Amino acid sequence: MSIKAIFLNCTLKPSPGLSNTGVLVQKAVELYEQAGVKCKVIRIADFKVAFGNSSDEGEGDDWPMILEEIKDADILILASPIWLGDKSAICKMVIERIDGSTSEADPDNGQYPLYNKVGGVLVTGNEDGAKKVCADVLFSLNHSGCSIPPNAMAYWVGTAGPGPSYVEAEGERHFFTNNNVRSLVADTLFLARLLKANPIDTNLKQISEEAKQESK
Amino acid sequence: MSIKAIFLNCTLKPSPGLSNTGVLVQKAVELYEQAGVKCKVIRIADFKVAFGNSSDEGEGDDWPMILEEIKDADILILASPIWLGDKSAICKMVIERIDGSTSEADPDNGQYPLYNKVGGVLVTGNEDGAKKVCADVLFSLNHSGCSIPPNAMAYWVGTAGPGPSYVEAEGERHFFTNNNVRSLVADTLFLARLLKANPIDTNLKQISEEAKQESK
Amino acid sequence: MSIKAIFLNCTLKPSPGLSNTGVLVQKAVELYEQAGVKCKVIRIADFKVAFGNSSDEGEGDDWPMILEEIKDADILILASPIWLGDKSAICKMVIERIDGSTSEADPDNGQYPLYNKVGGVLVTGNEDGAKKVCADVLFSLNHSGCSIPPNAMAYWVGTAGPGPSYVEAEGERHFFTNNNVRSLVADTLFLARLLKANPIDTNLKQISEEAKQESK
Amino acid sequence: MSIKAIFLNCTLKPSPGLSNTGVLVQKAVELYEQAGVKCKVIRIADFKVAFGNSSDEGEGDDWPMILEEIKDADILILASPIWLGDKSAICKMVIERIDGSTSEADPDNGQYPLYNKVGGVLVTGNEDGAKKVCADVLFSLNHSGCSIPPNAMAYWVGTAGPGPSYVEAEGERHFFTNNNVRSLVADTLFLARLLKANPIDTNLKQISEEAKQESK
Repeated sequence: MSIKAIFLNCTLKPSPGLSNTGVLVQKAVELYEQAGVKCKVIRIADFKVAFGNSSDEGEGDDWPMILEEIKDADILILASPIWLGDKSAICKMVIERIDGSTSEADPDNGQYPLYNKVGGVLVTGNEDGAKKVCADVLFSLNHSGCSIPPNAMAYWVGTAGPGPSYVEAEGERHFFTNNNVRSLVADTLFLARLLKANPIDTNLKQISEEAKQESK
Repeated sequence: MSIKAIFLNCTLKPSPGLSNTGVLVQKAVELYEQAGVKCKVIRIADFKVAFGNSSDEGEGDDWPMILEEIKDADILILASPIWLGDKSAICKMVIERIDGSTSEADPDNGQYPLYNKVGGVLVTGNEDGAKKVCADVLFSLNHSGCSIPPNAMAYWVGTAGPGPSYVEAEGERHFFTNNNVRSLVADTLFLARLLKANPIDTNLKQISEEAKQESK
Repeated sequence: MSIKAIFLNCTLKPSPGLSNTGVLVQKAVELYEQAGVKCKVIRIADFKVAFGNSSDEGEGDDWPMILEEIKDADILILASPIWLGDKSAICKMVIERIDGSTSEADPDNGQYPLYNKVGGVLVTGNEDGAKKVCADVLFSLNHSGCSIPPNAMAYWVGTAGPGPSYVEAEGERHFFTNNNVRSLVADTLFLARLLKANPIDTNLKQISEEAKQESK
Repeated sequence: MSIKAIFLNCTLKPSPGLSNTGVLVQKAVELYEQAGVKCKVIRIADFKVAFGNSSDEGEGDDWPMILEEIKDADILILASPIWLGDKSAICKMVIERIDGSTSEADPDNGQYPLYNKVGGVLVTGNEDGAKKVCADVLFSLNHSGCSIPPNAMAYWVGTAGPGPSYVEAEGERHFFTNNNVRSLVADTLFLARLLKANPIDTNLKQISEEAKQESK
């Protein structure tokens, strides 16, 4: 079974500036590729993504092209730096656009485009805030249809206060982070294969009808 | 395949006081039971659970008994009221105790006790705060080993400000909430069955060894 | 003493689209003006604000002009809609740009540009998420130098699930929200006058020297 | 003018166990005392505080005594460890009890007991989560009536993953944390003195009447 993973790197900096988060993403890409997973990395700051809550905000909006790539993947990983203890504004913009896709429900069973996909999150920051970012991102991906396996997150942060970022701090040799990236790859891949072979059979349209009856 | 669900109701009030969150829990219980799932509801305030971060905090701690019930279940649902826009203190206490179980890793594959279980969350409050509670709870369950399917959350809240709670406001007839409870039951049950038949095969001990090599 | 208030409306929609959050902002503007406060409202989506973490991201960045207006004000109110239980991406972008101003420390006492200003937050959404948005915004404003009086927040949200927004739902007649807007205006104005007459005398440069000695 | 500060240490461990958070608290105590502030530290785990949302949960509840100490103080500092990226369950319990005090409004102006007090927060953890804890605590204190000056927070955390805690890691010599503790003491003291000499004159009862008229 062929599995595809897509990474959305939500650094605030466009290419070719160094993205620490992007370096962590590459760790995961290499591991996925060793397992035969086809990977695609999109650095959002290199595109023109419009603010909004629909799948297409009109002329000049690069999101529809990115959304096609997401729909084509089995695993969706959002990667974000930490700014003031929170995900980047670009990451929030991406979350809002992904959430917009839930209105494109399948006419037969009401499932949204991200149903049966598996979500994960990668985070780097020079300090504190990673778990909040992970919680926000995983909640948003889950809310938009993704399933979340254990170990769906990996991050690197330094000690309290200003300090070197991931690459400069040699975070690439940090055991805790490396361990989590490996677990993330293993568990997301396991669940992606399982759900691809056994898609969720929930009929959201039928459930909605039952709930309407119950709520009269 | 026989599936068991356990609900931990984290209301601040002991029995026999009315728990609005408990009434929402009953909705889910009925739906699970219709699907042949065996359910157990534990109201934490009726027990003596100690503050702490281990699986057993010693004499007088009721948690070890509750943890056994959790280990015996396939689906774990935390249910919490909202206080000041956040989960209850009892819910946070339960999260800390569940997190303590991750130190009981399987000697062969390093998986923690909640691996291969499915998590979900139910919330009621008279107003605002439900999504934050859901995000915090799902993050914590996931971090402790649970997988999270789509629609793993259901909640009821009223309009901004003080006002009637779930039962008094006839929230039991609120379509959005009823729809979400039904979807939660369907999706958690689907994933629980799938994971019970196909347990995650990730060997966390082996991964840890590989990460150590990489991090030297 | 003349007091100025600036409002940054972080709706995702540019003019002339209806901004529900903007309508709530007008409530506060009227009350401030009745109290003799000069008000300025900036709808961020009508400007080209660059992603980034500095006070000037270069050519085409409208932020430096907006930052001048902020520096000129005594009260800074961020106003945001709720999207997926969280502040808007534009609100996060604004938070990141405001945080960038902390590097412009006063050469004498090390205070940042927002020191001695007072912060507040206004939120509308069709449902759940307001307190999380308020907490995030107030934390960020405070972290960037603002003082926060009691009642520094006001919001409107409807019942759980999709539904009418602030204007359509006649939220303008919602007592809880109106009460909070009035308290917000009174308390932010009180503290703004107090701090303008009695600026914080903390010398952050001297404190930094003392902390260096202590940390050797 | 005599100023009093009260610290509520929300470690999960009762005395005489080492509380890393308590050691950070002592740093602040020493600085306050050098400035002539009278300090009182209460370690909540040493008392029997009941879960609940009122100022007195009945027989055996130690909270009424603690609440008296809070009412008697000008500065209120909550101190919490980090567990799973969040404040401790005891800290949430304290937040809920403090929030209960808002129902004891002054009969003349409707202000709650914490009006005109100044809030702050101290946090230690072996890793990530401090800013989320700070944001939650400051939001809660502010919501219950406290004013929040700049630099109202100080924390220590280590690098991502398990590791030594504050004392073992020699966090007491960490410049960033020491700098923040000093700033916290200076700014909370400045604002406490200012508000004690110039109490907020907002009449919440009158505002409520005006809001009722507006909301008909």
